[in-house]
Amino acid sequence: MSTFLRSLAGESTESAPIWLMRQAGRYLPEYRALRQRFGFWEMVQTPDLAAEATLQPVRRFGVDAAILFQDIMSPLPAMGVEVAFDPGPVIARPLRDAAAVERIVVPDADELAPSAMEALRLVAAESLVPVIGFAGAPLTLAAYLVEGKGSKEFAAFRGLARSSPAVLERLLDKLTDDTIAYLRGQVPAGAAALQLFDTWAGLFDEPTYRRLGLPRVKRIARALEPSSIPLIYMAVGGGHLLDAMADVPCAGISVDWRTPLGSVRRSLPGKTLQGNLDPAALLGTREGLLAEAHAVLEAGLGGPHVFNLGHGVMQQTDPDQVAALVDAVHSFDRRRPVPALAGAIP
Amino acid sequence: MSTFLRSLAGESTESAPIWLMRQAGRYLPEYRALRQRFGFWEMVQTPDLAAEATLQPVRRFGVDAAILFQDIMSPLPAMGVEVAFDPGPVIARPLRDAAAVERIVVPDADELAPSAMEALRLVAAESLVPVIGFAGAPLTLAAYLVEGKGSKEFAAFRGLARSSPAVLERLLDKLTDDTIAYLRGQVPAGAAALQLFDTWAGLFDEPTYRRLGLPRVKRIARALEPSSIPLIYMAVGGGHLLDAMADVPCAGISVDWRTPLGSVRRSLPGKTLQGNLDPAALLGTREGLLAEAHAVLEAGLGGPHVFNLGHGVMQQTDPDQVAALVDAVHSFDRRRPVPALAGAIP
Repeated sequence: MSTFLRSLAGESTESAPIWLMRQAGRYLPEYRALRQRFGFWEMVQTPDLAAEATLQPVRRFGVDAAILFQDIMSPLPAMGVEVAFDPGPVIARPLRDAAAVERIVVPDADELAPSAMEALRLVAAESLVPVIGFAGAPLTLAAYLVEGKGSKEFAAFRGLARSSPAVLERLLDKLTDDTIAYLRGQVPAGAAALQLFDTWAGLFDEPTYRRLGLPRVKRIARALEPSSIPLIYMAVGGGHLLDAMADVPCAGISVDWRTPLGSVRRSLPGKTLQGNLDPAALLGTREGLLAEAHAVLEAGLGGPHVFNLGHGVMQQTDPDQVAALVDAVHSFDRRRPVPALAGAIP
Repeated sequence: MSTFLRSLAGESTESAPIWLMRQAGRYLPEYRALRQRFGFWEMVQTPDLAAEATLQPVRRFGVDAAILFQDIMSPLPAMGVEVAFDPGPVIARPLRDAAAVERIVVPDADELAPSAMEALRLVAAESLVPVIGFAGAPLTLAAYLVEGKGSKEFAAFRGLARSSPAVLERLLDKLTDDTIAYLRGQVPAGAAALQLFDTWAGLFDEPTYRRLGLPRVKRIARALEPSSIPLIYMAVGGGHLLDAMADVPCAGISVDWRTPLGSVRRSLPGKTLQGNLDPAALLGTREGLLAEAHAVLEAGLGGPHVFNLGHGVMQQTDPDQVAALVDAVHSFDRRRPVPALAGAIP
């Protein structure tokens, strides 16, 4: 079994597997070449283009996992929500009342983003490394559906949580059903692991997150348990939510760059930790990059660790820096005796 | 002395003083009436307009402090940096190398934003409540100066911190000198308290913050100590930086809505806590608003507390909600015996 899947199965592997959030994207010249001919949403919805974008970073860098080139908005059209990109997601008719929420469809799994499933099948047939499927978490999808677009403050969304909590809870429940169906559908299509992205969970204080977000994330994780496919959960800016996340029955937690991996391991016993190099480290000198990467590798000792960034690759990144990072992570021996940390190595 | 200044002097006052970040702004019809005739930057630079905007919320709500209507960009023109608003700040020529940094001027205090000083004098002469002056912290000013505008990722800025750390450190040192002069200048002009806004400090992990941000914040706080004017420091999204902030020799720390006030008091012994109602609470029902406000008031017991939001007032806010909040905070008796919390009241 690959180091990636062994690590997610709870093994403190001899070297850390590595993949990078947003590893398929604009920083790659071969991706930009595709984008000169096709729009982003067109690529997402065209299986062979999505499969090609998925495989580009695997071929170039030898990362240990592919992540399906899709968007967390991919299943929305099948749920009856019109979405466009300009360049971020724009919801033509934001959902702000009970009637709008009732119009959300919970279709059968095979109707939820069939082009994503087809892309996944194409990648799984060709990829030599495990393929990660993913979905947006209900709170994060709801943030876009209510606000209508990305926002610094998400005033409409956070307001609705106060002015019409029952409407929002109903929306979150329907999105949870949809997300379960969407993720379950990715298993027979070829996903070897799944990641649930909760991009906006960090907007909320812990009590609100425990009321609105956490129960749905737990329900999704429980619904996937019978599949035996490992689930990784990621809440950006969620350092203050770690104690709550400890309750999610998932294999891995992806940690953003502001939370030290060592302290996280104490808060999340039994979880594989994923992360958490600052994506900006890739923009600096080679020497600085490798020093920061080593610090993350050392902080990740003492249990299973999947190396990743603490957020997505920035488009300004030089691909050669990524190549150097992948090599450095692969050549770091997690079982060598490290005097200062020896006691922490199992 | 006002409850606001007594609280900042370390007294656990009988009621919590209240003011709100961005209390002068677009949610007020009288402010929007001004903005129909004048641009934002024009208002900032015109002393009688800035004074009028400053006083509007004081008259309407009876808050316990006025905060000068200015922008953290106010002192930039005198420092040789051209700035415009569209609608956020835009720096015509972003600073990304040593030569650009050397062009930053550190003028005498009386040359730094003279119109802000004049506005402060006008407000101080008329206001019945203490007036808060403010500045942006060096790390936050540098984020805008390097990036050129607000950004979700601040890639250029975070990249420069890695690729040319000496250039950034030099910029931060010059901005620290400027900020000290600017804040010192506000004392004779009439400021009764000062707030240092570190809007983007939360982008950094703690080691990076300790290297780039904290030493400058401490230097500013030490430089202001002889004035005996209390300083409040605010790092948005800085829950992971609280241990570092404990070292800043300032009177108060303003806390964002995601960090529970009770736990903060343990991390910041000797500091007056300011905050931290979620601004979105003002968008909900009256009953929900008052419940959330009471929870913040109770969490703030056990030491000096200046009630505020955890971030700025959102423009969608109904002013009547703010009026109800101010009344609720003023009528909450912090010295009444509260059985469950009695042990925590000094």
